[in-house]
Amino acid sequence: MTRQALIDQIRSKRSFLCIGLDSDPGKLPKHLLRYEDPVFEFNRQIIEATHDLCVAYKPNLAFYEALGPQGWLTLEKTMRIVPDGIFTIADAKRGDIGNTSAQYARAFFEIMGFDALTIAPYMGTDSVKPFLQFPGKWTILLALTSNEGSLDFQLSEQDQSGMPLYEKVMRRAQDWGTPDNLMFVTGATHPEKFAEIRRIAPDHFLLVPGIGAQGGDLKAVCQYGLNREVGLLVNSSRGIIFASQGEDFAEKARVAALEIQQEMAHFLAVHGK
Amino acid sequence: MTRQALIDQIRSKRSFLCIGLDSDPGKLPKHLLRYEDPVFEFNRQIIEATHDLCVAYKPNLAFYEALGPQGWLTLEKTMRIVPDGIFTIADAKRGDIGNTSAQYARAFFEIMGFDALTIAPYMGTDSVKPFLQFPGKWTILLALTSNEGSLDFQLSEQDQSGMPLYEKVMRRAQDWGTPDNLMFVTGATHPEKFAEIRRIAPDHFLLVPGIGAQGGDLKAVCQYGLNREVGLLVNSSRGIIFASQGEDFAEKARVAALEIQQEMAHFLAVHGK
Repeated sequence: MTRQALIDQIRSKRSFLCIGLDSDPGKLPKHLLRYEDPVFEFNRQIIEATHDLCVAYKPNLAFYEALGPQGWLTLEKTMRIVPDGIFTIADAKRGDIGNTSAQYARAFFEIMGFDALTIAPYMGTDSVKPFLQFPGKWTILLALTSNEGSLDFQLSEQDQSGMPLYEKVMRRAQDWGTPDNLMFVTGATHPEKFAEIRRIAPDHFLLVPGIGAQGGDLKAVCQYGLNREVGLLVNSSRGIIFASQGEDFAEKARVAALEIQQEMAHFLAVHGK
Repeated sequence: MTRQALIDQIRSKRSFLCIGLDSDPGKLPKHLLRYEDPVFEFNRQIIEATHDLCVAYKPNLAFYEALGPQGWLTLEKTMRIVPDGIFTIADAKRGDIGNTSAQYARAFFEIMGFDALTIAPYMGTDSVKPFLQFPGKWTILLALTSNEGSLDFQLSEQDQSGMPLYEKVMRRAQDWGTPDNLMFVTGATHPEKFAEIRRIAPDHFLLVPGIGAQGGDLKAVCQYGLNREVGLLVNSSRGIIFASQGEDFAEKARVAALEIQQEMAHFLAVHGK
């Protein structure tokens, strides 16, 4: 998907919501267990109930791999029912030496058909570049993540510059990709950093996890994170998909997604987007 | 597998060779394409030809995921035919926020039955700790990798200390795990660093990629990397499994593995292990 198509979708839906399909097999509503593939049925109903409110779906691979090979089949089936025009992100946090990263790129972009893939930067240039060679596909590089462990290394000052590691990653990555094929993961749990993040990468889209269950604040993210072309995809997973674990889970997921979409529409209006 | 069982295996086989099952579907010998599952047949013959010469097999997930869901089925079948007593490493370089890492741990340790999993450290404490909660299972943390991109971030000096990032990772990780459940990836392409690495982690096993196709030198790795209980798993992938792409691939893989095993036996003797 091109950058322009993504922006157009955000403008027409008045939403920059990404729904995380972290469909933990252990947390599914009990009545779904009678289906042959309960996770797929769960995803199907979630997508049916929310696809007009969000612009992206982001399955986290861990929850599919926890089912072994069957989980990859479920993921493949899920990808087939995502409506055309919605951005799809494999939250897989891959990254390996060059020839191996090229295989991961093939897996997610060509075989599974995702628009985007999250990538871990620790292994540097040759581990990231292969993902940037696929026209119309996106690399979403971990920069400043939403978890507590982000304090361990990502905020360490580097070299003589005093620049934190996440900033060095963001600056270095701009030699590899452009705002047309590279985004960054920046957690909503660090709202005080968003002004700085926007100085480092004014034009790139940011994928922002951490609102909802992890405690991040949408207002602060919008205040400092919105750019001229919106430039944000804000993710919510558990807060939407597990809003209820009863038979009304899809309906309650829609209510939760609608609430966030309406907040987003409000902030877009406030900021004149 | 316990540390002692791994050490016993190394001593009895006079080998610390790990064979990387990076079974690139695009590089298989042509005569295997008539099999229903060519990658599985390739792995089966490689394992049959080499299992007395190595102590570990390490499939890299990228080469399986490049086949989509079928690749995970092939990997599952491959795991079932690895002889008992051989150490198995999923080279998957996973790592995510705490609750998600726990799902990956379940996938690889419980569902797929691996002894060990490679983990990327960028996301810090809570992304690594869940893997260390499984008795008898191993976390192999990326420290100083074998690729060119290792120069981008892993060697950057941190904070006021001047300590490179890979060292900070290795020191911090020793708060999380012990030599009984934690290893480090340290590439053979940085032989000049092995003395330093052994000062940082004298007792941990090191998983060493990068000999063979990537140019690393076994002698230097042994000189500085061997510890009192050997403490090394040295990996070769392409140099063994693609030693020939003809009908004699398994036989040639054995020749290549035997050559490395004999070098290893020599260095074990030289260093009195």
